[in-house]
Amino acid sequence: MTKAPVTPERDIAASGPYALAVDAMGGDRAPDIVLAGLDLAADRHPKARILLIGDEALLSAALAKHPKAAGLCDIRHSEASIPMDMKPTSALRVRGSSMRMAMEAVAAGEARGVVSAGNSGAMLALAKIIVKALPGISRPAMAAVQPSARGDVVMLDLGANIACDARNLVEFAIMGEAFAQAALGLPSPTIGLLNVGSEELKGDERLRQASERLRASPLGPQFHGFVEGHDITAGTTDVVVTDGFTGNIALKTGEGALKLAFSLLRRVFETNLLTRLGYLLVKPGLERMREWIDPRRYNGALFVGLNAIVVKSHGGADGESFAAAIDVAMDAVTHRLNDKIRARLEQLGLEAPEPPAPAAAKAVPEPVS
Amino acid sequence: MTKAPVTPERDIAASGPYALAVDAMGGDRAPDIVLAGLDLAADRHPKARILLIGDEALLSAALAKHPKAAGLCDIRHSEASIPMDMKPTSALRVRGSSMRMAMEAVAAGEARGVVSAGNSGAMLALAKIIVKALPGISRPAMAAVQPSARGDVVMLDLGANIACDARNLVEFAIMGEAFAQAALGLPSPTIGLLNVGSEELKGDERLRQASERLRASPLGPQFHGFVEGHDITAGTTDVVVTDGFTGNIALKTGEGALKLAFSLLRRVFETNLLTRLGYLLVKPGLERMREWIDPRRYNGALFVGLNAIVVKSHGGADGESFAAAIDVAMDAVTHRLNDKIRARLEQLGLEAPEPPAPAAAKAVPEPVS
Repeated sequence: MTKAPVTPERDIAASGPYALAVDAMGGDRAPDIVLAGLDLAADRHPKARILLIGDEALLSAALAKHPKAAGLCDIRHSEASIPMDMKPTSALRVRGSSMRMAMEAVAAGEARGVVSAGNSGAMLALAKIIVKALPGISRPAMAAVQPSARGDVVMLDLGANIACDARNLVEFAIMGEAFAQAALGLPSPTIGLLNVGSEELKGDERLRQASERLRASPLGPQFHGFVEGHDITAGTTDVVVTDGFTGNIALKTGEGALKLAFSLLRRVFETNLLTRLGYLLVKPGLERMREWIDPRRYNGALFVGLNAIVVKSHGGADGESFAAAIDVAMDAVTHRLNDKIRARLEQLGLEAPEPPAPAAAKAVPEPVS
Repeated sequence: MTKAPVTPERDIAASGPYALAVDAMGGDRAPDIVLAGLDLAADRHPKARILLIGDEALLSAALAKHPKAAGLCDIRHSEASIPMDMKPTSALRVRGSSMRMAMEAVAAGEARGVVSAGNSGAMLALAKIIVKALPGISRPAMAAVQPSARGDVVMLDLGANIACDARNLVEFAIMGEAFAQAALGLPSPTIGLLNVGSEELKGDERLRQASERLRASPLGPQFHGFVEGHDITAGTTDVVVTDGFTGNIALKTGEGALKLAFSLLRRVFETNLLTRLGYLLVKPGLERMREWIDPRRYNGALFVGLNAIVVKSHGGADGESFAAAIDVAMDAVTHRLNDKIRARLEQLGLEAPEPPAPAAAKAVPEPVS
């Protein structure tokens, strides 16, 4: 516990007793899905300590029915929660909300990461103001893992930034590399920049500039160049970098197309008695296929580029998918995602001046598993 | 051909003897796929006259093996053709190419539309210079029909314009409506504007402005508002309007996801003897499903907003898909697509090009939820 890490650990949450601060009140079916998710997380991360923030009376009563989750958590009472449809500007003014208190716990060094299934816009706004961007990162982004024919791929930005310039895209590539290392366990993930064609002259100035900068950087050997829409599911690269507008639309278009395929397939199998028999014969394989591309398995978008790990679960998550979001956060914490990002920023000469380090003398614990 | 249309016909090609001028030399396997496509077109459009442009010796010999196509076509000799990988700026300098001559035939009023499976960039550049944009259209766009759970939908722009402003998007909505009327036979197609969320404040200034203008226009009752990526395949609206960058990526991402679904499905069916038997039981339905979403069936992107019908077939087209592209062109010609666009432009007071607006204030990005 006292051994200093090779890479200096400067996460603001490095010295806290908790692996994660979890917003118990965010999501369409909170806190039930949160507690169901924590039950599953208790099996997967038995040593992790969780700070569970929400209505204490409600949570105490509920935890009685979730003994596994109860063994993992300390409860901290919050007076308020942020409605799913509240505008970010309004959400910022809500004091004592479970989401804000989770961010504050991280900022105070009590936990290394936050997980919430609450209002995305509010979450990003609070994270930027309370947890703050990593020095050198001008725009934190939203990243997630997606299925492809060649295994999982990381895509970002999925919607945190509607408009992006070349520098933002270079930062996304750095953050995407670190996320792919942490989430997919790839030592040297390949990186593609999403464009309307793979030729060097395609796209706009911003894309061509980002491409040139990446090619000339230490990330050059891993940089594949431009990729197109079909390359996402083909798995041409391990990381797909794009602006938040395009990324959000590509993500939802891909999910929609897979959903269309399954709904057409259902019609095929329901045609007559013979096709129903056919369905029974392939059912196990089909269910594995459906599980494999199930968006719930890919739940947990990382707001990457902040001074701590901030993970957004889908608002409509169930327990299984909330547990997947906790996995994303734990992977990022365990693999010291932010250290990897900092090292790349320094290597690329993109790091900003060091921030004042009041807590520098504190002993640094080993990463939580 | 001599009957005066009810709607005054002002297409530059209105009085010509040919329905279409077809570039026989464009595409990876030209002219074979062109002639195979024309054979099929002869059954579907027996009264159409086609001006077939390409190497006369080659075409004369080849037509001997395609008697149906031969009955439809007159050959016009061209000395050159534009390579598939030539840059548009270079392609513009090639005199006497089959693609240029097809455009020139339309501009001279000999034919009402052009079909080519050649170089897309060259085709768009030549069309803009020779056929020219419709008065009031500042940016011709690329439109095509896509499959959805509720039937076919029209999407545009698919890549003709990387950056678009609010006015361009309003024009795309007008052109999309007309295309959906012609291609899908819908009298009052609904229109959606692709965005990262459906709430009115989502996206950038350009999208919010386009949305306001459409809502206040005579197209208002058909305007659904913002739609998201998954709405394309859900068929939420009959027309999906977006900029060419996003549209191109959404198109290819959706195609890629469907391809992934089929490749996973193949693995499921190939697991063992029972799953192979299951495959045999559902095979007819599966093949109908595959055909229904087959990109070849949706071949034929319309460069809409020009003074004539200009249809781009995929470069890798086969005879069947080239025939689909001819269908798109014939539908647009028959349904007087450009008259519909002109009528809407007048109704919206957009007949004249808008003076260039001062650079819009930088949009404040709204986070996605």
